[in-house]
Amino acid sequence: MRGFNMVKIIDGRKVAKQLNESTKQKVRELAKKGVTPGIAVILVGNNDASRRYVHMKEKKANELGINSIMKTFSEDVSEKVVIDTINKLNSNPKVNGILVQSPLPKHINEQKVINTISPEKDVDGFNPINIGNLFLNLDEKYPVACTPKGIMTLLEKYQVNLDGAKVVIVGRSSIVGKPMLALMLNANATITVVHSHTKNLKAYTQAADIVISSVGKYKTLEDKDFKPGAYVIDVGQNLDSNGKLVGDVNYDPKTSKIGYITPVPGGVGPMTIATLMQQTVEMCEWGL
Amino acid sequence: MRGFNMVKIIDGRKVAKQLNESTKQKVRELAKKGVTPGIAVILVGNNDASRRYVHMKEKKANELGINSIMKTFSEDVSEKVVIDTINKLNSNPKVNGILVQSPLPKHINEQKVINTISPEKDVDGFNPINIGNLFLNLDEKYPVACTPKGIMTLLEKYQVNLDGAKVVIVGRSSIVGKPMLALMLNANATITVVHSHTKNLKAYTQAADIVISSVGKYKTLEDKDFKPGAYVIDVGQNLDSNGKLVGDVNYDPKTSKIGYITPVPGGVGPMTIATLMQQTVEMCEWGL
Repeated sequence: MRGFNMVKIIDGRKVAKQLNESTKQKVRELAKKGVTPGIAVILVGNNDASRRYVHMKEKKANELGINSIMKTFSEDVSEKVVIDTINKLNSNPKVNGILVQSPLPKHINEQKVINTISPEKDVDGFNPINIGNLFLNLDEKYPVACTPKGIMTLLEKYQVNLDGAKVVIVGRSSIVGKPMLALMLNANATITVVHSHTKNLKAYTQAADIVISSVGKYKTLEDKDFKPGAYVIDVGQNLDSNGKLVGDVNYDPKTSKIGYITPVPGGVGPMTIATLMQQTVEMCEWGL
Repeated sequence: MRGFNMVKIIDGRKVAKQLNESTKQKVRELAKKGVTPGIAVILVGNNDASRRYVHMKEKKANELGINSIMKTFSEDVSEKVVIDTINKLNSNPKVNGILVQSPLPKHINEQKVINTISPEKDVDGFNPINIGNLFLNLDEKYPVACTPKGIMTLLEKYQVNLDGAKVVIVGRSSIVGKPMLALMLNANATITVVHSHTKNLKAYTQAADIVISSVGKYKTLEDKDFKPGAYVIDVGQNLDSNGKLVGDVNYDPKTSKIGYITPVPGGVGPMTIATLMQQTVEMCEWGL
């Protein structure tokens, strides 16, 4: 029997589907003007997860009518070749967004490669100038890291009030935690960032209205680590001991006092790819 | 009688003096190579406080052997003239740092003006790319906003442990709060940013090891708003009803349980100007 207090699911698949529909519609509108948005993806090496992600991105782009260009390199490719490739894509007018699938082999300087991507084509929002624009909350058009941007879309769809909300961000990566904190600050939330050096980390999550966890370790947080009714956004993508995809949060759907949670899979994951597509099309529109 | 628990002063004047000595020494070293660091300051209009700050900066630069170029414009100067001036300074090899004294008249777009300053000469650290570099904690040389950078120097001189410290930043301006949060996060502190939309703001300051207040309103915080032994960094520069310079914090030196505080005047203020000079010289060195 479904109890009154039962934890509710924030359905990332459903919202991603709606977002993809809207993106598809925008692509149709652009087609009327003779314009097709394009995304270029650079993949280096044979990392299985990376290949899977890249394939998913390519597939989704094709589904939505976005041109996709794949640039695949072997593990031992030189940094120069990758950078030359990006420079060519920077000047290719058919490409609106360029992304480099992380991680890169150790002999390639990832930040240098990312900084080579023209800020106007930095669809992942990782270029320092785009990070700076976001932190300064500039009233301009610039790309934002897709995972945090997708989380903002999810919270908006679920009409979560962020103004004055007590938000705790667990993890401070450049890809999730830091842009997330900027977006939340821009939305007038009271934000705390906790991380590996934080003492008594769970005292923070226990007091939060909204917890966003991007630690990358299963069972980092459990039911007792949240206040009743809290919103929990689980960014973790981990494998448990049975090889099953799980998040950072371990909760019992029957007894949990969590208010709303993004499941893994089916929460943040689909939103990230849908947001990548959304942003590719937005960047195409901005350039018109 | 001086009690055991008496609040201790973080002496910004003393640390600024030491920092200025070290800057002067660096200027002497550069002189041996035939190099003189240079700073250009742009002042628009007749705001008394702005004129005073600019004069202090010019005086300090001259004291330390740094060339200073003043560009003064009347209130009704066009945005184009200011931008053209910056472009000339950008290509002037004698100028290492360019700063535009805030505030600018309403008909001039301040962010546009700041973005015109070459990132390599952005001595105030306000350009989005420098903000982005800071948030990404890149291992490169880039300028950082002088007030927060000066606060880090103060805390270092007083050997305050930041790793895992509970830091609460009151105020989220682009000039103080945001770069401060980045510096503290980079120093492995646990950071919370509270602001005008925060509910129960004082519950946060009361729990903090270190509070950095940059609200700009006298008596925003009082003794009861801090935990015993806390470090309090008062960035406020306000005038009380008698026209006396005061900070954000009102405390009673005799009974306060605050551990350490930066007084106003004599705390953060002198450090900001000393840091501006330090950074001008550093930027000159980086360019060699």
